[in-house]
Amino acid sequence: MSRLLPDWLRDYRRVWLAGDITAGVVVTLLLVPQSLAYALLAGLPVEAGLYASVAPLLVYAFIGRSPAQSVGPMALTSLLTAATLSRFADAGATDYLVLAVWLALLSGLMLLAMGLARLGFIADLLSEPVLAAFTTASALLIILSQLAPLAGLHNPGNSLPQWLVGMWHQPVSWQPAALLVGLLALAWLLLVRRWGGRLLQRLGLSADAAGVLVRTAPVVAMLAGILLLPASLQVPVVGPVPAGLPRLVLPAIALEQLADLALPAFFIALINYLQSLSVAQLLAARTQDRVDPDRELVALGLCNIAAGLVGGFPVTGGLSRSVVNAEAGARSQLASLLTATGMLLVMCLATSALEHLPLPVLAATIIAALLAMLDIGSLRRAWLTERADAVAWLLTFALVLLLGVDSGIMAGVLVSLATLLWRSSRPHIAELGRLPGTHHFRNCQRHAVETLPGVLLLRVDESLYFGNARQVGTILLQRAGQTPHLRQLVLVMSAVNRVDTTALSMLESLDQRLQQVGVVLHLAEIKGPVADILQRSGLGQRFAGRVYLSTQVAWQSLAGLPDYHI
Amino acid sequence: MSRLLPDWLRDYRRVWLAGDITAGVVVTLLLVPQSLAYALLAGLPVEAGLYASVAPLLVYAFIGRSPAQSVGPMALTSLLTAATLSRFADAGATDYLVLAVWLALLSGLMLLAMGLARLGFIADLLSEPVLAAFTTASALLIILSQLAPLAGLHNPGNSLPQWLVGMWHQPVSWQPAALLVGLLALAWLLLVRRWGGRLLQRLGLSADAAGVLVRTAPVVAMLAGILLLPASLQVPVVGPVPAGLPRLVLPAIALEQLADLALPAFFIALINYLQSLSVAQLLAARTQDRVDPDRELVALGLCNIAAGLVGGFPVTGGLSRSVVNAEAGARSQLASLLTATGMLLVMCLATSALEHLPLPVLAATIIAALLAMLDIGSLRRAWLTERADAVAWLLTFALVLLLGVDSGIMAGVLVSLATLLWRSSRPHIAELGRLPGTHHFRNCQRHAVETLPGVLLLRVDESLYFGNARQVGTILLQRAGQTPHLRQLVLVMSAVNRVDTTALSMLESLDQRLQQVGVVLHLAEIKGPVADILQRSGLGQRFAGRVYLSTQVAWQSLAGLPDYHI
Repeated sequence: MSRLLPDWLRDYRRVWLAGDITAGVVVTLLLVPQSLAYALLAGLPVEAGLYASVAPLLVYAFIGRSPAQSVGPMALTSLLTAATLSRFADAGATDYLVLAVWLALLSGLMLLAMGLARLGFIADLLSEPVLAAFTTASALLIILSQLAPLAGLHNPGNSLPQWLVGMWHQPVSWQPAALLVGLLALAWLLLVRRWGGRLLQRLGLSADAAGVLVRTAPVVAMLAGILLLPASLQVPVVGPVPAGLPRLVLPAIALEQLADLALPAFFIALINYLQSLSVAQLLAARTQDRVDPDRELVALGLCNIAAGLVGGFPVTGGLSRSVVNAEAGARSQLASLLTATGMLLVMCLATSALEHLPLPVLAATIIAALLAMLDIGSLRRAWLTERADAVAWLLTFALVLLLGVDSGIMAGVLVSLATLLWRSSRPHIAELGRLPGTHHFRNCQRHAVETLPGVLLLRVDESLYFGNARQVGTILLQRAGQTPHLRQLVLVMSAVNRVDTTALSMLESLDQRLQQVGVVLHLAEIKGPVADILQRSGLGQRFAGRVYLSTQVAWQSLAGLPDYHI
Repeated sequence: MSRLLPDWLRDYRRVWLAGDITAGVVVTLLLVPQSLAYALLAGLPVEAGLYASVAPLLVYAFIGRSPAQSVGPMALTSLLTAATLSRFADAGATDYLVLAVWLALLSGLMLLAMGLARLGFIADLLSEPVLAAFTTASALLIILSQLAPLAGLHNPGNSLPQWLVGMWHQPVSWQPAALLVGLLALAWLLLVRRWGGRLLQRLGLSADAAGVLVRTAPVVAMLAGILLLPASLQVPVVGPVPAGLPRLVLPAIALEQLADLALPAFFIALINYLQSLSVAQLLAARTQDRVDPDRELVALGLCNIAAGLVGGFPVTGGLSRSVVNAEAGARSQLASLLTATGMLLVMCLATSALEHLPLPVLAATIIAALLAMLDIGSLRRAWLTERADAVAWLLTFALVLLLGVDSGIMAGVLVSLATLLWRSSRPHIAELGRLPGTHHFRNCQRHAVETLPGVLLLRVDESLYFGNARQVGTILLQRAGQTPHLRQLVLVMSAVNRVDTTALSMLESLDQRLQQVGVVLHLAEIKGPVADILQRSGLGQRFAGRVYLSTQVAWQSLAGLPDYHI
């Protein structure tokens, strides 16, 4: 029986209770405005945000391993959702809701499948500078997208060009009252973040308590907006929110629409996983715990499936919310269960109050949260370390602004991998000779070595794979062409840890091309795994009699000396 | 003055002339049906195919370096064009034409930019098995897409699910006459390809002449269709084709539409470059020439820009056409100039005849050409060589069929790179010890070595980069945690050829985490380029006093012995 309980519940300690309760309450206060705001950011009705908050919290509490992780709607994910869905349907249409649900289900299923297949390494598709650039550019786009609602305008688009064009063509209908309310809320949030903690500490609170209390500034702004704002000002408000629990849904969808969603769902899954994994690792570092990436994948997958089934949209672990959860004292997943309970209470009892919540206040909440995500420092660090990484940063940043977040994330993956290809595409290739009187072979350019007439020894200092096979083939042919009276070319493969199909077919066509010009290709010092692949592919037979255990054996043989074995 | 002439014209030899003329005529006969068919495949009016043939031929003759390369409309590129444009406009609409022009211009500009920036390595984004799977699946999709016109039906979609759904819902309106004509044409083309060469050789032609003559089968089918088919059968025909030369165009386009086209244009550029590069390399191998990838990029870019400016669509070097060109005797770009002249003559004099060309004959032409592109053998080769490559093949094949070619190509790039990440994500990490009495350090599990109490020596056998940094960090922490009484961890970096920003930040946080548990991290045998990056990033200062030239020096120092220098 107790096997069915999650670990944290079986081993629950009484001393954790106070912290868990505090964290549960604080995170509820944080989550209410966030869930509403992020639902609007995703182009969905606010109740979708409430639904997408409760279900994942419950699922993660039972499946997840990171005690303070707080799974739910997040800004970046919501923007990605909006950017994806706006390609296929208009915000507000029924279709849009259906697609949002399926986006969550699909990305959940993908995460689940990746977790079960132990494909956690997929998280490494994005390099750190590219991820930082993507996050910074996305945060900038989100802030831009919220400037319009802050002033009571319609949100004009998902990329910088779209936004500029949209703002330009927008009819002049600024609502001064809305702008004032938005700016007041923003000022409040920024001032509290900047000086609230110090002030509370001066008033006698502990640093921890002050830190936690400061985080409830958005809910204060929200309550002030609801309670104090006279309806006569006509500031746009959230409007009717259905009360009560969500119903389970699994709306019908056409197969081709599903196919359209597949790639965006994959990228949303990727970003969600990266976010939630980095949160889990940060939290684990504080408590000296370990993170199991595949387990996180499974948990996050189930959270997204749950979010979809209650009519929500894609969710992930949020950094700021999880940190607040931890700092407010969360020691176990009970905190998340209590947050879920709090959200359920809001959904059942307080929706009539949420109706009057001014939209500019929600916009201010998002902007304030996102300002903290702008990370220009990462560009400086990349520049100092490796220029290629800095170029990748700038390229990703520009592409995300230009193409929007949804195409930008693909571009980011490509930029990551292009830097990788670029680095390994021109490997170091050294011409070797023998240190006189020894069995040691060294770079001709750095040591006084002896060579054999008509024989060229070349060592490639990199594994051979599709990213460099073509170029290595070209360079080797070139080197062979530049060597007068060449008869034998020995490829020393001591630094080649791996080869793939592309590399083998390069070796085969290299051999053919060299044969045509009367040069024999030999292979020396092939590592075990590489030799296995050569045999399996049948290339071993082709090279039979031209493969040597060591460069020395090749040398002896080509010099016409009797065989020599180490 | 003569500097302005292309190399081949300045050095032209009289003996080339006969071959160039023959090739020019033969390729014209091949190109007329191809250009019409591929325009229809791209969802464009047939004249766009004529325009997209002439302009690139002229440009390549002056800029290109591969004498027999024949640049123009190709099947895969046309399908990619159709798949991309059908997302944004309906085939036949003016919008569609505008987008096609801009797709050619954009991908041309990208190719040009990549060529000028010497980014030829971009071609290596796709591994060989993935490219083979992509080509095979795309050929299958193109064949499916042509089954409908073969039978006089409407083409139902760009991916397998779309096609199945489309065919299912299609009103039953088979046109038996159209189907018969299509099947006859297909049978003719396949029979000629299978036995035509042998028959002609028995009739006394040389193997070369027979091979070339066989390739003109499509134009024979075309002429038979135009001349012999009675109009009363009501087989669908091409319809009116405007006579005369194309006009230069540069249609207006909205900035956001341009942004929508950017990513597809990049992938079309990539595929076009890969195709034309492999053709150039194949041709160069026959004549022992070398290919300059960057120069090919520039030439192909200008060809695409030219194709766009005359109202065409993206183009590339076609394998079968170029091989026919070479086999028919093309020795210089004069052959292409003559082909262009031939096409111009057709455009000015023969368009009224093309009107009566039956569509099923064009569909048969495409199907016959594409059947040769199905390459299942590449799967078998990949399976024998490396299972991961075979899995990548199958995955790409399935994704292209499922998502269509345009999303499929992105998926293919991701699959290529995922196999790369997967292979390098779990590098070999060996624990080292000292061979007693020597300065040699070897794997503890394979040799009888001595160790120091509280000291762990670990060697990572792979460069550190974003693809494996996280996992290496996790494994190192784990190993440290499993070693009782550990005080010092030495990372031996003799096999680390490169590090990037992500790897450095892993090293930094690894150092922090180890510090927290009272373990000091040391670095030994850092290679030159890696050491440079450590210094630049400021991490060198962090590790000051903990970096050793060799493992032996680290050993001496940690054993409390006096310093020892090699």
